[in-house]
Amino acid sequence: MPVSLIKESDVDVLVIGAGPAGLMCANALANAGVNVRIIDQRPSKVAAGQADGIQPRTIEVFQSYGLADRLIREGNQMHMAAFYNPSAEGGIERGGRAADVNAPSARYPFEITLHQGAIEAIFLDSMRSLGVTVDRPIVPSSIELSADEAELKDPNAHPVKVVLKHLDAQDGKNDTEVVHAKFVVGADGAHSWVRKSLGIAMEGEQTDYIWGVVDMVPETDFPDIRNRCAIHSTNGSCMIIPREGDTVRLYIQLTDADAVDARSGRVDKSKMGPAKLLEVARKSFHPYTMATPQEIEWWTLYIIGQRVAAQYAVHERVFIAGDACHTHSPKAGQGMNASMNDTHNLAWKLTHVLRGWADLSLLKTYEYERRKYAQDLIDFDKKFSALFSGKPRTMDNEAGVSHEEFVAAFKTHGMFTSGIGVHYRPSRIVDARHQACARSLVVGERMLPHVFVRVADARPFEIQDLLPADTRYKVLVFAGDTRDAPQRARVLALAEAMGLPQAFLRRHAGGRADAVFDVLTISSAPKDEVVYTDLPELFRPHWSKVLVDDTDMFQRSGGGGYAAYGIDPSSGAVVVVRPDGYVGMVAPFEHVEDIDEYFASFMTASP
Amino acid sequence: MPVSLIKESDVDVLVIGAGPAGLMCANALANAGVNVRIIDQRPSKVAAGQADGIQPRTIEVFQSYGLADRLIREGNQMHMAAFYNPSAEGGIERGGRAADVNAPSARYPFEITLHQGAIEAIFLDSMRSLGVTVDRPIVPSSIELSADEAELKDPNAHPVKVVLKHLDAQDGKNDTEVVHAKFVVGADGAHSWVRKSLGIAMEGEQTDYIWGVVDMVPETDFPDIRNRCAIHSTNGSCMIIPREGDTVRLYIQLTDADAVDARSGRVDKSKMGPAKLLEVARKSFHPYTMATPQEIEWWTLYIIGQRVAAQYAVHERVFIAGDACHTHSPKAGQGMNASMNDTHNLAWKLTHVLRGWADLSLLKTYEYERRKYAQDLIDFDKKFSALFSGKPRTMDNEAGVSHEEFVAAFKTHGMFTSGIGVHYRPSRIVDARHQACARSLVVGERMLPHVFVRVADARPFEIQDLLPADTRYKVLVFAGDTRDAPQRARVLALAEAMGLPQAFLRRHAGGRADAVFDVLTISSAPKDEVVYTDLPELFRPHWSKVLVDDTDMFQRSGGGGYAAYGIDPSSGAVVVVRPDGYVGMVAPFEHVEDIDEYFASFMTASP
Repeated sequence: MPVSLIKESDVDVLVIGAGPAGLMCANALANAGVNVRIIDQRPSKVAAGQADGIQPRTIEVFQSYGLADRLIREGNQMHMAAFYNPSAEGGIERGGRAADVNAPSARYPFEITLHQGAIEAIFLDSMRSLGVTVDRPIVPSSIELSADEAELKDPNAHPVKVVLKHLDAQDGKNDTEVVHAKFVVGADGAHSWVRKSLGIAMEGEQTDYIWGVVDMVPETDFPDIRNRCAIHSTNGSCMIIPREGDTVRLYIQLTDADAVDARSGRVDKSKMGPAKLLEVARKSFHPYTMATPQEIEWWTLYIIGQRVAAQYAVHERVFIAGDACHTHSPKAGQGMNASMNDTHNLAWKLTHVLRGWADLSLLKTYEYERRKYAQDLIDFDKKFSALFSGKPRTMDNEAGVSHEEFVAAFKTHGMFTSGIGVHYRPSRIVDARHQACARSLVVGERMLPHVFVRVADARPFEIQDLLPADTRYKVLVFAGDTRDAPQRARVLALAEAMGLPQAFLRRHAGGRADAVFDVLTISSAPKDEVVYTDLPELFRPHWSKVLVDDTDMFQRSGGGGYAAYGIDPSSGAVVVVRPDGYVGMVAPFEHVEDIDEYFASFMTASP
Repeated sequence: MPVSLIKESDVDVLVIGAGPAGLMCANALANAGVNVRIIDQRPSKVAAGQADGIQPRTIEVFQSYGLADRLIREGNQMHMAAFYNPSAEGGIERGGRAADVNAPSARYPFEITLHQGAIEAIFLDSMRSLGVTVDRPIVPSSIELSADEAELKDPNAHPVKVVLKHLDAQDGKNDTEVVHAKFVVGADGAHSWVRKSLGIAMEGEQTDYIWGVVDMVPETDFPDIRNRCAIHSTNGSCMIIPREGDTVRLYIQLTDADAVDARSGRVDKSKMGPAKLLEVARKSFHPYTMATPQEIEWWTLYIIGQRVAAQYAVHERVFIAGDACHTHSPKAGQGMNASMNDTHNLAWKLTHVLRGWADLSLLKTYEYERRKYAQDLIDFDKKFSALFSGKPRTMDNEAGVSHEEFVAAFKTHGMFTSGIGVHYRPSRIVDARHQACARSLVVGERMLPHVFVRVADARPFEIQDLLPADTRYKVLVFAGDTRDAPQRARVLALAEAMGLPQAFLRRHAGGRADAVFDVLTISSAPKDEVVYTDLPELFRPHWSKVLVDDTDMFQRSGGGGYAAYGIDPSSGAVVVVRPDGYVGMVAPFEHVEDIDEYFASFMTASP
């Protein structure tokens, strides 16, 4: 038998690209114990620059993986936005201020700014503790899907063949290897090799807006230098994003003449340098001063392009994610967030399919949910970029963008830009038919944060902390007022219905309910009038699983949860939260069969 | 020249004993960059059992060293206390519940329980990152102070000679070494070798109360098993302390016959085992059941002794701390807290003397402050132990301890048992003459926590997080209402007075004010009406140093700080917080010379 000189190996998931999207994916899969490999062409992680802020919703997602503490500790927080406009004396003046985040339900009411290398390091350290590191520098050189239909439909098959080239192979050594993967995730950036290899088109166009970016420690008397600022001057627009330490990022609007090569129509970095960029900025800042510092940490130029990939997946075996599927303006601070949330959405679905819990078809919901989001993002970005890049309204230019118009847009889009308002439309995993029983827990949106108190020890918990991204569905039994005898009887009946062998808890994952489902019970009664041992055992697999809608011992937090969620304590509700923290379904006690149906539509009855 | 075979070395501080008191000391000194060595006779850290809960004040102290996050993450939180009493039907019933902590200003309104090994690990990891590890197993075999008065008074001399014996020295190798130390801290436990070597007596007595302790995962239907419980039954008293994970600690009252050797009068562990202890407990728990689990994590027996060392220091060169100076009942959960707070008090004083910033005499305040505290603790413990160990009041025993009496004592002593109420009496470092200008910031007590908002970026901060244990005095300039022109003039005058070469900021540490003093400014004006660049430069060495007494952008925190501190916004105040977080002095703007006098009384004018 001839021995192949080429190394061949099997892997469950191959992730191509170790930027934010790829790392979120690999870390989530590593957390779930999935056999994952991640490769990148760069010899090491990013050192400076790139990437935008982390939105409130993305911080919640980090927290669901246990990574928010470090992100918050290392990053800068943006709490306030300030708006500057042309003043009557020439130069600019402050028109007003607002909260940087306009999403009242945000658990973290601020954005975090931190350089991309530090964010990547959070994932890399987390993955390392799980035994996964990035293989680099490696590039893929070919990707091929099996033509065999049966193989493509067999979740245990390895139908994707990828040839890899090691860039650091020593002379004379073989630099090529072949990987057979069950699934491949292409998170390889705006110029995605995976996307191009699969022949997926980008739909959309390039704008005429050209911007320069400079990261530096400023020397200035501008009083809002530590706030997000939108500066509209008659000399051009400018945006300030304060970052970690004393660093500040400036976005500076340019004209074609400043930065575009007339012949090719492309941005020409040789026409501009950071000193020249700051010269442009200085004109917008007048009467405030802005010296050119000794050191510039990072700078670049770009033209805004707004495009979405025509498809996100091929045969539910190869996926693209992050910048590989969508490009847009960095100024709304969405890029890295959209990318990481793509793979946060995908990773648990891959895990469920790999474990045999769900059909391959579950993976179709990835494109359905995330491509729609990318389109919404681009629609928003078009409006916002036009407002931002447009000339300000002044006495001489009444057609310009007014301060009120800009601030109104900033506030209106707050739910969207914070990531809090992301809404997945109805699908097999988003079932809104019983929305009325929990009016404010919008099915398809992320679970609303709220503090409840654990009844066994009166310890307050943010409910989101009890919904970690551990690949399990969380089944929250809002038991209502358990002091009331008829309600207690209804709770018992619910436990009976949910405990049946054919009900969802026992029907999937070979009946090991706690592998797939985490049941929590929340009574609306005061903490001194509930004893956890009174509840049906199905609803308290452990003493820690029973909560009440009450304040802590010092009335510092908690209470009012039923009202905030729109649940009537005299009827209660069952709330299904997906592994990614989004509400999948809400149902009244009397409709357990609808919850059964929900899960049966995409989960396998065994193993 | 003959070569000595005995290794000799110099060290600034030698800490003997690596329990909680020794580790707090070594970690604080390592943080300060002090040349410190710590030894212990045990070959490794404690694995299970021992030690009590961590009080709210001690959590604040951990936070000041950046160690609270891990403590909170790993530990169990006790929020609630429950009181059980004899019921009319025989057995016990719940008489009531209360907050476990009765100290409204506590930043962390709960106690943490965590086994001593985990707490030691927090310090060991922190020290390791600073290059300090525990040398073990080593015991001291002699300690000797120089008889030369001049040497004892020279802060740069090494007047303490300690001979150490390495317990793990290999056969034939020399197991002895000599250390010459500037200072020695004996944190070597209740049977302290350092204390005995120095001939320091323990004053106080032993009680007749005998208790057994069992750590285990209980199997029980007792509904308050996750709360601190005081159980008074006609069959004896019992206390429950829930711990990390599912572990619970039981304290069980015993009689002499159960546990004391009649001949010697000492506790005889052979008379009792965990199974027998649980048999005794079971009688108190009736009608609730408490099975004997397969595994007992740890158990012990003890007689309460209440003693304080006659002195805490010899020539301000050798100190004792922790259990070496005070022993008392573990049931009030004070032991480990008292010990760690001893060395938290001592470490910064040693640091200031070693750096030449303060006179040796500053060290006298250690015994003055901490011995008084230990005496108060023992007075409290006597009362509380008597109440706890006494028979409950029943129909048959009207002289017994009533439920109301016990709960009242529990609540009354809340400020003390939480550590929040610890009050250091006037001394050179506690100057209360101007108390009236900040009525609620009690001089000699720890700085009250409160949230203020940073004016440059509207980010809310808990003020305690801006007062880290970094060995610096924090000078808080409560500037008052800086919108008001006369008040602004007063602030300018204050900056002028504080900026004079003879004023305290420039007079000590060779004029490097920021080495010893951290100046923060807090305006009472709303955040939108203050610009940090308006304040005198002395009061804003960096943009991050100016705060306002206002809410954050979502009104979730902050505001009302001047009222909470009892400071009039139309006059303001200067507040000096010691490096250990205690208020050292408050003063009106017009009395900078009194602040100068305060510092001059214990600090050197140079270097």
